[in-house]
Amino acid sequence: MDFHYPSGRKYVPRYRGNTEDSSPGNKISYSNRGMTLEDDLNETNAYYLEKGLAVIHKKPTPVQIVHVDYPKRSTAVIKEAYFRQASTTDYNGICNGKYIDFEAKETKSPTSFPLKNIHDHQIDHMKQIIKHKGIAFVIIRFSQSEEIFLLEAEYLFQFWDRMKRGGRKSITKQEIETHGHPIELGWAPRIDYLKIIRTLYSF
Amino acid sequence: MDFHYPSGRKYVPRYRGNTEDSSPGNKISYSNRGMTLEDDLNETNAYYLEKGLAVIHKKPTPVQIVHVDYPKRSTAVIKEAYFRQASTTDYNGICNGKYIDFEAKETKSPTSFPLKNIHDHQIDHMKQIIKHKGIAFVIIRFSQSEEIFLLEAEYLFQFWDRMKRGGRKSITKQEIETHGHPIELGWAPRIDYLKIIRTLYSF
Repeated sequence: MDFHYPSGRKYVPRYRGNTEDSSPGNKISYSNRGMTLEDDLNETNAYYLEKGLAVIHKKPTPVQIVHVDYPKRSTAVIKEAYFRQASTTDYNGICNGKYIDFEAKETKSPTSFPLKNIHDHQIDHMKQIIKHKGIAFVIIRFSQSEEIFLLEAEYLFQFWDRMKRGGRKSITKQEIETHGHPIELGWAPRIDYLKIIRTLYSF
Repeated sequence: MDFHYPSGRKYVPRYRGNTEDSSPGNKISYSNRGMTLEDDLNETNAYYLEKGLAVIHKKPTPVQIVHVDYPKRSTAVIKEAYFRQASTTDYNGICNGKYIDFEAKETKSPTSFPLKNIHDHQIDHMKQIIKHKGIAFVIIRFSQSEEIFLLEAEYLFQFWDRMKRGGRKSITKQEIETHGHPIELGWAPRIDYLKIIRTLYSF
């Protein structure tokens, strides 16, 4: 039997990408259909777009292109390029007049979220977004328990500042449970973060 | 004498990138300091960010990565990759609670803007943005006369639909002058599109 997404597209199991928790011999997790957090969020955003609920996209991975071959004009091949660090968060867009901006991260730690997953300039970026009356948050997935949480940027900043003052370099799972919002994995949308945000900000 | 941007960064003349109007033997245009429209917009956005006026970034060029070498863990080299077509516009962000989204294009034609510079899915994207109460527009630069115009998406859609009905495949410069808004090239910010948008939408 073939499975199909609501869009009619056939479901094809995918291999996990190069995420923190990928390891040889454990390439497919059947319990979540082999999809990474990024896959699930892309599906979610495609669903929101199709239903007219929001226009939110993942930004492309920033790459510094050094050398390109043009064997034919129509098929330029990039022969040398390097990954650059992103200066913003990965996802942004709009829902009903509200600007939405977030970062998504997985951790294999069962008890805490290491703050090394976030960069200084991403914190700065989210602070700027809040100043301009946008909505900023982070989606955190604990890959071992497959639990997903949405944590508003304002709380992330508090834990970030604690680290900068010499405190712990992570957010405990308990703190995330206290201040964040659990997201149940669904079918369509897969990760319904918009429901939480619309409730929190009443729009 | 060295020139410096307001940020203190030294001004270094740059070569034109791979834009439509780049041609051998005409690598530097001194009249606009050798900068492309993209360079000027990046400077403009950096200025807006620094002054706290807006948070608007260019999205990275979308690239399909096929092969990566890891000679050392710290220096992954992309050895094979291909350019993908963008599914959205190039620039988006927020200003004072308003979602802003635009595409920027140069043309060497002195009399019209060819609509082949814009793709179907970019039009679809901008229509979705308008539906969600965002602000969408296109910035067009006529490279020969070095004139820059801001044209709101609503007008772009009209000319796009005219083409789809079998009409002309471009917007005449006169039409852009009638419906669009000229932007004088400045020092800082270089291309003050925000001033026009804030006046048009009163925010």
